[in-house]
Amino acid sequence: MKFIGSHVLSVDQFDRDAIEHVFRIADIMEPYAHRRKRTRVLDGAILGNLFFEPSTRTRVSFGTAFNLLGGEVRETTGMESSALAKGESLYDTARVLSSYSDIIAMRHPKAGSVAEFAEGSRVPVINGGDGANEHPTQALLDLYTIEKELSHHGRSVDGMHICMIGDLKYGRTVHSLSKLLCMFNQIRFTFVSPPELAMPDSIVDALERAGHRVDRVEALNGSLDADIVYQTRIQQERFASQEEAAQYRGRFRLNSEIYTRHYKPNTVIMHPLPRDSRAEANELDNDLNQNPNLAIFRQADNGVLIRMALFALTLGVEHLVSRYDTDVIWYSDKANS
Amino acid sequence: MKFIGSHVLSVDQFDRDAIEHVFRIADIMEPYAHRRKRTRVLDGAILGNLFFEPSTRTRVSFGTAFNLLGGEVRETTGMESSALAKGESLYDTARVLSSYSDIIAMRHPKAGSVAEFAEGSRVPVINGGDGANEHPTQALLDLYTIEKELSHHGRSVDGMHICMIGDLKYGRTVHSLSKLLCMFNQIRFTFVSPPELAMPDSIVDALERAGHRVDRVEALNGSLDADIVYQTRIQQERFASQEEAAQYRGRFRLNSEIYTRHYKPNTVIMHPLPRDSRAEANELDNDLNQNPNLAIFRQADNGVLIRMALFALTLGVEHLVSRYDTDVIWYSDKANS
Amino acid sequence: MKFIGSHVLSVDQFDRDAIEHVFRIADIMEPYAHRRKRTRVLDGAILGNLFFEPSTRTRVSFGTAFNLLGGEVRETTGMESSALAKGESLYDTARVLSSYSDIIAMRHPKAGSVAEFAEGSRVPVINGGDGANEHPTQALLDLYTIEKELSHHGRSVDGMHICMIGDLKYGRTVHSLSKLLCMFNQIRFTFVSPPELAMPDSIVDALERAGHRVDRVEALNGSLDADIVYQTRIQQERFASQEEAAQYRGRFRLNSEIYTRHYKPNTVIMHPLPRDSRAEANELDNDLNQNPNLAIFRQADNGVLIRMALFALTLGVEHLVSRYDTDVIWYSDKANS
Repeated sequence: MKFIGSHVLSVDQFDRDAIEHVFRIADIMEPYAHRRKRTRVLDGAILGNLFFEPSTRTRVSFGTAFNLLGGEVRETTGMESSALAKGESLYDTARVLSSYSDIIAMRHPKAGSVAEFAEGSRVPVINGGDGANEHPTQALLDLYTIEKELSHHGRSVDGMHICMIGDLKYGRTVHSLSKLLCMFNQIRFTFVSPPELAMPDSIVDALERAGHRVDRVEALNGSLDADIVYQTRIQQERFASQEEAAQYRGRFRLNSEIYTRHYKPNTVIMHPLPRDSRAEANELDNDLNQNPNLAIFRQADNGVLIRMALFALTLGVEHLVSRYDTDVIWYSDKANS
Repeated sequence: MKFIGSHVLSVDQFDRDAIEHVFRIADIMEPYAHRRKRTRVLDGAILGNLFFEPSTRTRVSFGTAFNLLGGEVRETTGMESSALAKGESLYDTARVLSSYSDIIAMRHPKAGSVAEFAEGSRVPVINGGDGANEHPTQALLDLYTIEKELSHHGRSVDGMHICMIGDLKYGRTVHSLSKLLCMFNQIRFTFVSPPELAMPDSIVDALERAGHRVDRVEALNGSLDADIVYQTRIQQERFASQEEAAQYRGRFRLNSEIYTRHYKPNTVIMHPLPRDSRAEANELDNDLNQNPNLAIFRQADNGVLIRMALFALTLGVEHLVSRYDTDVIWYSDKANS
Repeated sequence: MKFIGSHVLSVDQFDRDAIEHVFRIADIMEPYAHRRKRTRVLDGAILGNLFFEPSTRTRVSFGTAFNLLGGEVRETTGMESSALAKGESLYDTARVLSSYSDIIAMRHPKAGSVAEFAEGSRVPVINGGDGANEHPTQALLDLYTIEKELSHHGRSVDGMHICMIGDLKYGRTVHSLSKLLCMFNQIRFTFVSPPELAMPDSIVDALERAGHRVDRVEALNGSLDADIVYQTRIQQERFASQEEAAQYRGRFRLNSEIYTRHYKPNTVIMHPLPRDSRAEANELDNDLNQNPNLAIFRQADNGVLIRMALFALTLGVEHLVSRYDTDVIWYSDKANS
């Protein structure tokens, strides 16, 4: 995969070599993200951070990643201010807005819109989520997190056992992550969901064709030797009645007691965030906040590294980052943590 | 015209020397806008980009122009968050917000509000559009585009033939452009519009007093030796009925077939953007997108150059830009195009 | 008080030494805020400017202060785009958003929310206003303004006479300022308000315990030898009827005629802004705009200095600012004023 000058629209673009390359560049970004070093390699470059659908954390994560490489950020949030609402085509919007920046990160509520925009764009476009379709940087940061977490236990993605729980039918993140995992070897998947929210057959087929083992169950039962548990949200409105929702909910939640009963002492806990902490949802309980295996906030940290890596690769500076180092002058909690 | 420390509120402030000066500075900005060079001449300067009425492209264009000169941008979008809504006068808002920046670009839905704001401001204010009143940077970028496009054909603004089409009564851009053109010589204007959307007499009079030739017609008829065709949008709601609108629409649209029938092979096509690509409007058809005479996206590019020039002139650095050059490190599609 | 790495949540954190230290650092910031000098001491640092409740001037003031020290700003405005609306806890939001920046300035409509957020944050949080609760930077800039203004007349905060007028019951700014003044000596307070909007007893008690003299009156009467008059807004809805509001209003307004009648020729006029200039409110008349004692816009200027000081102290660079000086290249009205 050629990164320089390319769009990043879908996980389907990546082969295993490309993934490993992104991850090695993400590793290089760590001292910069932790404020132990400072680079100016993107000095003068402008990110067009176009969030036609609001998403604070993804937007800020892209912007921060670009700033950490020394670049500037120009932003747009929401649709109302946009000419799209006045009947402008995405092609025109792309032609014009891309003339103002060197690279674009874009989120849009409509599936396929980011790829359509990319056709009119004069600069590389990174998909920050297009409706139910794709959110490739989330999938990459999830996989990067899995690789890093497992390496602490001397394990690797190849041969791991991952358990995905909750709404596996509509969950964009578990679909994309599963697609990426097709490129790895001998993984065991346990999909836990109500039948009406089961992982689509097309994805199960792809995983099995890739040589992986897939088990589908409707509830956790006994001890699972999972290396990773990936929780997702189950939305109440997916069920016929409140009673049905209440009945299911308990089976797909995770809290300290359930964790101890069903998982290993070092099973890594992941979630795409935000988690709904209201009592009626609460798919991942706060009583796990002090558990060292809870990786959800490290996922967010890793998102910055992955986005820095994609910016550096797309703008062709991945090998130049350390050549423009300067000192970090100010006090940073991050450098000290 | 003295630029340093001055407001830019109206096209009426400009004489021909001032216009030519702005355009020569805009020319100097090209290598910076194309990312072949990088300057830090506005290092530490802050643009207050105050868009009390949303306009993504104009807002981002101002912000990008300021970043390209090395400055920082602080932004405001919309009215709801503003103290104006709590009964604060524009004078107070201006006194306070101008204390936070070195120059202000401002858009506001109310005619005259930008000039009123400028009276309270302690820094220069550039009008980014005040309702139906003025949008001087749009007029300047239109004229700059005309001059550049014609120069490729060995022609100049003096002596050209320009055809303006559509809603000439309410179109702020065609009014302002016409005012600027009063300062040039022996131009031929063909105004094509339904009578109820005709160019106002005051502007026609001014053009004729300036020695220009003006023809007003209700439809394109036969071949026009126009150097420039400037399309605008006709809004359906301007007409008594849907039938009337449908009847007019065909006469004021532009597509490949109409272009070939009525214009020269090198007639430059302009439009203030956004163009409405929905079937019921479609004043400028996508079948012209590959026509090399279509200058609408070059207009957007030129907008960045004009805004860079006005920032540099107003902050007194137009002669210093190249003294603070550094290298562009990263890969840029723009530099390679 | 230890500043480095600490949150700034409440005026209660400050003792007199800490206040004086902040003010001396604010003094050092003046040439940078006036664009006579430029520093890069926060190069590479990122401010997370999180305004979950809109407030243009406070938001822009924080952002500008950070830019003036050489840092970058990533912003969020409003709640709708936030995961908080999807049931995410403030703890989670804080954990994630704090991973993107080095320091956070935050405003939120709910009292106590900023402190709650700070518990989850991995970087220092500065309270930019949490509902009716606290707005410590406003209190500090008010006190700093008083000290600076009085020093021009050879006076000091100790021993001064300050008159606070209007809605003293609900006015967050007069409460916080009064708390800070408890740490000074022998101040005379005159509180002018309708009885139903009187200063709370708890604050009056604290002031008297600190050895200050407090007079509470319902209207201005005769000449007051006040050094400072601090006007606030009286909101019409606080009264039983329009008639009652109209009757009170005249007694708590300030204009040139009232100023001359009740104050000294050098009584300093303050107001937290925005002032409501509509006829039915108009608590501080525009006929005082040219009065040199009107300090309301200097308050806004001082807000930038105070916020620069708090950023520098919290990030541990207050002694390094001048070590990273560079020239200001561009023309600045501020440097020349």
